[in-house]
Amino acid sequence: MASSLLTRQLAISLQQNLRLAAPGSRYVSKTATKTVSEFEYDAPSMKTAVPGPKSQELLRQLGEIQNVGAIHFFCNYEESRGNYLVDVDGNRMLDVYTQISSIPIGYNHPALIKVMTNPNNVSAFVNRPALGILPPENFPEKLFESLLSIAPSGMNRVQTMACGSCSNENAFKSMFIWYRNKERGYASPSEQEVGTCMINQSPGCPDLSILSFMGAFHGRTMGCLATTHSKAIHKLDIPSFDWPIAPFPKLQYPLEEFVRENAQEEARCLEEVEDLIVKWRQKGKPVAGIVIEPIQAEGGDNHASPDFFIKLRNIARKHGCAFHVDEVQTGGGTTGKFWAHEHWGLDDPADIVSFSKKLLTGGYYHRDELQPDKPYRIFNTWMGDPSKNLFLSEVLNVIRRENLLEEVTRSGKALLQGLYSLQTQYPHILSRARGQGTFCAIDACSDATRDSIMLKARNKGLFMGSCGEKTIRFRPALVFKEYHVHQLLNILNDILAEHK
Amino acid sequence: MASSLLTRQLAISLQQNLRLAAPGSRYVSKTATKTVSEFEYDAPSMKTAVPGPKSQELLRQLGEIQNVGAIHFFCNYEESRGNYLVDVDGNRMLDVYTQISSIPIGYNHPALIKVMTNPNNVSAFVNRPALGILPPENFPEKLFESLLSIAPSGMNRVQTMACGSCSNENAFKSMFIWYRNKERGYASPSEQEVGTCMINQSPGCPDLSILSFMGAFHGRTMGCLATTHSKAIHKLDIPSFDWPIAPFPKLQYPLEEFVRENAQEEARCLEEVEDLIVKWRQKGKPVAGIVIEPIQAEGGDNHASPDFFIKLRNIARKHGCAFHVDEVQTGGGTTGKFWAHEHWGLDDPADIVSFSKKLLTGGYYHRDELQPDKPYRIFNTWMGDPSKNLFLSEVLNVIRRENLLEEVTRSGKALLQGLYSLQTQYPHILSRARGQGTFCAIDACSDATRDSIMLKARNKGLFMGSCGEKTIRFRPALVFKEYHVHQLLNILNDILAEHK
Repeated sequence: MASSLLTRQLAISLQQNLRLAAPGSRYVSKTATKTVSEFEYDAPSMKTAVPGPKSQELLRQLGEIQNVGAIHFFCNYEESRGNYLVDVDGNRMLDVYTQISSIPIGYNHPALIKVMTNPNNVSAFVNRPALGILPPENFPEKLFESLLSIAPSGMNRVQTMACGSCSNENAFKSMFIWYRNKERGYASPSEQEVGTCMINQSPGCPDLSILSFMGAFHGRTMGCLATTHSKAIHKLDIPSFDWPIAPFPKLQYPLEEFVRENAQEEARCLEEVEDLIVKWRQKGKPVAGIVIEPIQAEGGDNHASPDFFIKLRNIARKHGCAFHVDEVQTGGGTTGKFWAHEHWGLDDPADIVSFSKKLLTGGYYHRDELQPDKPYRIFNTWMGDPSKNLFLSEVLNVIRRENLLEEVTRSGKALLQGLYSLQTQYPHILSRARGQGTFCAIDACSDATRDSIMLKARNKGLFMGSCGEKTIRFRPALVFKEYHVHQLLNILNDILAEHK
Repeated sequence: MASSLLTRQLAISLQQNLRLAAPGSRYVSKTATKTVSEFEYDAPSMKTAVPGPKSQELLRQLGEIQNVGAIHFFCNYEESRGNYLVDVDGNRMLDVYTQISSIPIGYNHPALIKVMTNPNNVSAFVNRPALGILPPENFPEKLFESLLSIAPSGMNRVQTMACGSCSNENAFKSMFIWYRNKERGYASPSEQEVGTCMINQSPGCPDLSILSFMGAFHGRTMGCLATTHSKAIHKLDIPSFDWPIAPFPKLQYPLEEFVRENAQEEARCLEEVEDLIVKWRQKGKPVAGIVIEPIQAEGGDNHASPDFFIKLRNIARKHGCAFHVDEVQTGGGTTGKFWAHEHWGLDDPADIVSFSKKLLTGGYYHRDELQPDKPYRIFNTWMGDPSKNLFLSEVLNVIRRENLLEEVTRSGKALLQGLYSLQTQYPHILSRARGQGTFCAIDACSDATRDSIMLKARNKGLFMGSCGEKTIRFRPALVFKEYHVHQLLNILNDILAEHK
């Protein structure tokens, strides 16, 4: 296909350029075409160190109301455009973190502004319905044209929710309900079950479990948190469930040099999964479902091979556990396919797929069998927000119209090639460049070095995210083009060249 | 004050009218002033039975995607106005359920439409930020002018969240963090704590508990669900925590006839609370917090006296438990005060107050001590939605400008008086009329009768909610006026007169 040919050509020219760059010299990409959309800026522009004086004053004000320790700076969203985030001190940064990966097509995209200014849409914003009891007339139609039009293979059912955590909580509940219905042969629950559930006791509230992986992040409400194992600060002091936790493969990079070792590592983890399923069944806490991210994001951008996921899916089936793929961070096109699990090449990749962030609404798709047998089992007041579905419809139109998945594949290849080159140039600082689409990451030699690089980059107009112990993660919007890749690489190269 | 004088006068004339109404005759309120706002309709208007043919066709369509068993009908929100909800078949109903009590000032209020059409606000809708790391410039200002301007007594700190469940989940987490910090003398966590929390084990994930009440509803995510005990269908098949559950007082009505019995009942429940706190401490699962609704809503509109709450608050303090008042349904003005707990007359009513629904954004207020010591302990991607804060600011302006709390007090008295009269007229069908402001309820003699009354009312243009086993709950918007009360009572009276 023409586009992938172009991608390859660009990747080759990029590599050629990199070979020209002497260590420490400014990274210059001569072949990169400047493809700035008409609505965005063409480069970062910095006026103060970040956070600047206005951000600092606002931090002080907000500090009277909230813990502000996680705040980077305050933003001028009105002035932000496309890939460029503008702060309150007038600094304009290339944003490759995009609100923790939740901005699909950049800031103030004209298509989204049109949704807002279309008088037909006003009612959806000012009258938020209780979707589970009184949906608006266009709700089925909007679901078909938005979420159902991008449904993962084998899934025709979708439940919207307000956020990623609610999506996973309710996906877990669906798996528990499904599992117990199977166990009781689809008969009505006993009086004892109905009675004991009211006081949190089994058999009504059964000792079922969800198997998760070390390094996983599935959210922070208490059900989700029991499957999250990325950082202690998320979990410390919060009561949890005794649920099984399997090791996630720790692959060695570059993958092509460690084929045998990595295959062994994945086999070891899969064996452990089966052992845990058996062990927890013996303990009286059977595994109702397995939850996994296609790429562990918060946990450090940890990848596994399609083969690993295919075998895991089979293990789930073999043991009668539902298989839940959490695409909250990986979904929405950032890996070059709409869902990261599409890279596995399976016809029936999952029983449940949850989403949020770039989809603008939370929710999950599921197979028919995973639909609760009765109303009010999966329920809450809002069950999502139809105004977010309106935005999502328009985002999908833009993705299709502008061929953004191809764009992501192209930019992602350029980005990964660039990261490979940087780690070749600076092997004492960088390692383990990895990625799929623009969902890329690279490790620094220590957390202190990582943090220092990120702060320096921010002051030069490049805003990145971190994850794991010493990883920089790249989570640009889908409108991130090769031109932006080169801006990013140039800034990074400058910092690395100066790095002591 | 003039307004409460007026309220009393109207209540008296209403009572006089009721005395004139013979049993079975049409309820006619002669003194009620017609105070229809210029933007709404003046009465219900029915064209088909509900759900009508269009709703039924849409139900079929949506049934291919979701369980639709809880859906009443599909709505035409564009045509809905004020207290009147219009369905897709052109039926216009007086809505006293308001999207499970989540519409503060009626449908399509002109003030809210203005928020949408103000170009300065567009950016807040199309660029949803990760509030915990990159808030917009006006975020502190908007918090001060919206949520902080209505902060409960003794609370200057507020954390926004996306929905009621997330609010309670994070409120619980704040209480656990606070409790453990106290226990460890505000020292750093041990290595063992940091290590064990990653695998869901104590001491890192400690065996702490939240004490809740039978009949309570605090949400459906797994932490919240462990404190929810209103209906089995919410809890069946979902694993839970072994947390203590105290009895909520079962008061006898009318309250003035059962003063001694009710005081004894409340004393019995408080004694049980203390016993449970001691018992769970001995079990090694200390109670970090007590959570309670000022009026149990989902559980059946169960009230308790201010004295009960005052003593409960003291018990919490005595045993070192945080006291969390869940105002998700009671907050926002519907009881005649902005927060239902203001009726208790305490200077320090709570340590945490959570909200959602009518506030349009979820969240919770808390005392300074309940603020987490470190960033990222209470955190998620969105942490609310600034576009909801914009709407809330405007809702608060309308509440102040139109004196809606006084209006609620006035309409509430008329409603409760009307319900008293109906239960006097139809003692074989109705009993236990109760309420505060317009947050009113009445019991039917059975669940079947309750459901039958509700369906008949719906077909006559009155849309109500249910709760508990056989209760009808009234949850009108704050723009519900005496004129609407009389429409409601007339329809109910017609149905009751015909009831076999």
